[in-house]
Amino acid sequence: MVPNDRVLKQVVCDESTGVLSAAQANSLVHVSCSTVHPDTSRELAALHEANGLRFVGAPIFARADGVARRLASFCVGGKDGAVQSALPVLEANCGAGGIFRFGEDAGAGNVVKLAGNFMIASAIESCAEALSLAEKSGLEREAVMSMLNSTIFDCLIYRGYGDRVAQRCHHPGEPLVGPGFQLDLGLKDVTLALDVAAKVQAPMPVASLLRDRFLGATARGRGHMDWSAIGLSVSEDAGVDVSESLALPPKKRKLAAGGAETREVA
Amino acid sequence: MVPNDRVLKQVVCDESTGVLSAAQANSLVHVSCSTVHPDTSRELAALHEANGLRFVGAPIFARADGVARRLASFCVGGKDGAVQSALPVLEANCGAGGIFRFGEDAGAGNVVKLAGNFMIASAIESCAEALSLAEKSGLEREAVMSMLNSTIFDCLIYRGYGDRVAQRCHHPGEPLVGPGFQLDLGLKDVTLALDVAAKVQAPMPVASLLRDRFLGATARGRGHMDWSAIGLSVSEDAGVDVSESLALPPKKRKLAAGGAETREVA
Repeated sequence: MVPNDRVLKQVVCDESTGVLSAAQANSLVHVSCSTVHPDTSRELAALHEANGLRFVGAPIFARADGVARRLASFCVGGKDGAVQSALPVLEANCGAGGIFRFGEDAGAGNVVKLAGNFMIASAIESCAEALSLAEKSGLEREAVMSMLNSTIFDCLIYRGYGDRVAQRCHHPGEPLVGPGFQLDLGLKDVTLALDVAAKVQAPMPVASLLRDRFLGATARGRGHMDWSAIGLSVSEDAGVDVSESLALPPKKRKLAAGGAETREVA
Repeated sequence: MVPNDRVLKQVVCDESTGVLSAAQANSLVHVSCSTVHPDTSRELAALHEANGLRFVGAPIFARADGVARRLASFCVGGKDGAVQSALPVLEANCGAGGIFRFGEDAGAGNVVKLAGNFMIASAIESCAEALSLAEKSGLEREAVMSMLNSTIFDCLIYRGYGDRVAQRCHHPGEPLVGPGFQLDLGLKDVTLALDVAAKVQAPMPVASLLRDRFLGATARGRGHMDWSAIGLSVSEDAGVDVSESLALPPKKRKLAAGGAETREVA
């Protein structure tokens, strides 16, 4: 996986080191798992085809440790033959149950990945707003989140990000956060989603709001933190002092029991 | 349960038929499960106390059929003695695992309930926006939702409302919807959350956006539909014709297999 569209294009197209150059005419399948613009996958699929290669867009919902435990989910788009060739590699990472096919459009999986990441960011924001309402009404943030993510929101995203937002635990390396997913990448993904949204004419008012939220967090120098750190801005907007959550080193932070989370999406 | 603050106050305070009048001086505990403003619970708790009665605010996450199956979750606020007296009644409806206590503030449970309902409405909106992005990019709404609510969003709220939004199934009485939760009540709850938010100074930009979304849906005459019908507005904003979803009688609609949902929150 590579971090963005520019790097992916370079990896593919560089005249001396690129995939197209190195693998030319040997009919290999390139399985691209990065979170990029769907149009980048579509362009690259055409380029591969023109060079006798095949391309599958298969972005992945999982963090590195989730992949290591074969818990990934792949969102797959590409020509049937290419996808068939790619399946053994994908299945080696998650079993057949983690492979979701969305047709022959090489960019289809990227659309799903951007839609999913938007939904995660939206969940982070809504947890943060709900907990701000609760905290400023005199309730304990952690108790409220624990109630909600053990009942009606009892799923990976709310259990993981909900507790982080409740505890304002956003530093990569902290047990509750782990490697994290960089806030800068969250901004990139929301921006990509909005770019696709503009192109296909699908207004996404919450995504627009999230883009401003991510911009505000990066402006505060939090681009390297876990993207759940947008929750800090929600607290700050409510006049809550979050300096302790920003300043303390990970080992000094109050943390929930680690290891509860089995995988993390990026 | 009663539908709003006005009716609750009437049930309590009416001079001839009210709880205070009928039960005066007999030390009963009034367990109020309605979704109302926290201040209403606080006022009523004081009124009960002044009349020799006790009051517990215990709003409930569950639809009627969920309660019947003892799957409710109660968010409880009130004086310890009163809550202890109320526990047998609450446990009869959900077992001890469904009772969440948030201290002696009689309005605390109402805050949690409003926070939770805001999060549900936010989840509905984000599903609708994500699916709009996907659909207008040429993907199948139902396949995208199915992938997401069977993996990272595998919980009650996303499984239930996600499929409804994907299939644009919002008529009460349809198998995928069941009795539903009236859109008018969703508007009421988001409005209550924003009212509390203003009082405690906790900005909630997504809640503000949702209020406009609910207002737009009621303006279109959809107040009687399930509150997931705000998803129709997201589609309409993207230029998608949803007339079929509005017009067809329930029995003619394409529906997913019923019975998958075990309980529904209101």
